[in-house]
Amino acid sequence: MLKLKDGYNVAVVGATGAVGSRMTAILEERKFPVAKLVPLASARSVGKTVTFRGKPVPVQELRDDSFQDIDFALFSAGATVSKKFAPIAARAGAVVIDNSSAFRMEKNVPLVVPEVNPHAVGDDPGIISNPNCSTIQMVLALKPIHDKYRIKRVVVSTYQSVSGTGQKAIEELRDQSHGVLAGQPVASKVYPHQIAFNCIPHIDEFLESGYTKEEMKMVNETRKIMEDDSIQVSPTAVRVPVFFAHSESVNVETEKAILAEDVKKLLSSAPGVKVVDAPDLKQYPLAIDAAHKDAVLVGRIRNDISKERAVNFWVVGDNLRKGAALNAVQIAELLVQRMKS
Amino acid sequence: MLKLKDGYNVAVVGATGAVGSRMTAILEERKFPVAKLVPLASARSVGKTVTFRGKPVPVQELRDDSFQDIDFALFSAGATVSKKFAPIAARAGAVVIDNSSAFRMEKNVPLVVPEVNPHAVGDDPGIISNPNCSTIQMVLALKPIHDKYRIKRVVVSTYQSVSGTGQKAIEELRDQSHGVLAGQPVASKVYPHQIAFNCIPHIDEFLESGYTKEEMKMVNETRKIMEDDSIQVSPTAVRVPVFFAHSESVNVETEKAILAEDVKKLLSSAPGVKVVDAPDLKQYPLAIDAAHKDAVLVGRIRNDISKERAVNFWVVGDNLRKGAALNAVQIAELLVQRMKS
Repeated sequence: MLKLKDGYNVAVVGATGAVGSRMTAILEERKFPVAKLVPLASARSVGKTVTFRGKPVPVQELRDDSFQDIDFALFSAGATVSKKFAPIAARAGAVVIDNSSAFRMEKNVPLVVPEVNPHAVGDDPGIISNPNCSTIQMVLALKPIHDKYRIKRVVVSTYQSVSGTGQKAIEELRDQSHGVLAGQPVASKVYPHQIAFNCIPHIDEFLESGYTKEEMKMVNETRKIMEDDSIQVSPTAVRVPVFFAHSESVNVETEKAILAEDVKKLLSSAPGVKVVDAPDLKQYPLAIDAAHKDAVLVGRIRNDISKERAVNFWVVGDNLRKGAALNAVQIAELLVQRMKS
Repeated sequence: MLKLKDGYNVAVVGATGAVGSRMTAILEERKFPVAKLVPLASARSVGKTVTFRGKPVPVQELRDDSFQDIDFALFSAGATVSKKFAPIAARAGAVVIDNSSAFRMEKNVPLVVPEVNPHAVGDDPGIISNPNCSTIQMVLALKPIHDKYRIKRVVVSTYQSVSGTGQKAIEELRDQSHGVLAGQPVASKVYPHQIAFNCIPHIDEFLESGYTKEEMKMVNETRKIMEDDSIQVSPTAVRVPVFFAHSESVNVETEKAILAEDVKKLLSSAPGVKVVDAPDLKQYPLAIDAAHKDAVLVGRIRNDISKERAVNFWVVGDNLRKGAALNAVQIAELLVQRMKS
């Protein structure tokens, strides 16, 4: 069980990946009280190092005995690795914060966005799940709206960057872009189709309903985080040729009367959110502005002309930071803070 | 007044532009009975030629006296040019088919998608307006749905290619993409922000309501073409780093009960539409597949899990062809066909 200390031993599983490397960087940036950093990865990454506080830390092979004396284990190595090793880490006494989809919908596993549902984390949490990137940035904006106006239905279309798929997808977009610009044929390995200068309305597997798993994450995780199964969500998840940060076009129907001007004020004081909404000055959220930043940007907030009690907005966040690594570190901070108070 | 002939004199205003050059090519491809092609443009294009049926045709300066003995004048040189010269062409006896927004919402000017509302064109039409590209591809899919199920409300988010802005925007995306890939700073001249590897939720001017003019075109033109002002539309128009073809994520609420399977069948026989909807085979509409083709592709047709009597779909069309040049030529064909029958 976690105890208040001056410093904590932190394992990062998947330390060499796009999210794992950001977890290490964010622990350092935010001065998380790390006593010892243990970067873990598969055997083929052994020999690599991770730089932490200016010093190289050797990557160790992820094994059953990797979690002795670890306080926090941040996982971001995919659902298969999490399913096998997260319970091992939890049994060894670590608080597991898992970025994969492995445990998100399990009844006894809290699914947490610290600004939205910090109370969901108990005092002896075992495994805590980090939500899907597309969900995190959306619920940051939805929660204050739900609390004040009661959300009935959300129709959302996403514009998701390739970094959500990982480092190889970033390289595929770069290689294909070079190829298309040079008039050469391009090969698709990571995605089922060319992503350069194209939009692919397909993320994760298709289900019988015609929705994808990625889309259903936005439905189910939103309900779990907001603790309200009556919220209806219809998502369309689309991959676009952007390197970093996801954008989302969101339409929200509410029970109570709602005014865009009030929503702007409400979101201006919402934690984790920055309102960027001055169309006359050509200011609205952009992926290139949200990338590599912590804040989730919301703008183009307007009353829906098609329906009473509805608003539209555009929300953009860095999928690797607030959508993954930052949110995980914030969960660890929440637990440390709670022990102090 | 237009009379049945073996061949027609056709003027193309803006003949050297992205849409104008396609108008000429499509007239040739579809074997429109052209007696004489008159490419018109501003004085600075004089000296250039347009290739038609394998022969160079000199570009002439657009002037007040350009429309003597012209049967069809296809305009695509922007609203300012249309406002000035379309009435002159009409007075000279030409049927004007105008691709600009200049006359679209004028009461006496028909706004026509030949597959949707051919009856809107009278026998002596004067000026006929071509709708906005984003509207054309959407109404091709909406019309059969409206006829069978009565549409109440549409929530649409667009993923619009840069070619809709013109040749300079195509060059800007190309130049900026090269720059970003090379790690160099990029300049934005055509768009208010970097478009390479970014999404810009801003097309045309912002209005007091928070919607843009582009978005309001989708609202007002849809109602006019479908001849039903009760249809509610809430659009979000977004520019994405794609060269050709617009994609749209569309959510449609209907009065009558609606099943995705029935919509697939309905749209499979809809004119101008091609259903591409086999998710298990990773087949769905893509911008790179719709580009340089005539058909508007519809897929990801599914019942909305958030609401009864609602469906989602994804529609993709070449904004320069069906969204502009092809639709204009089809309007001319409609008039010729009508005189024959």
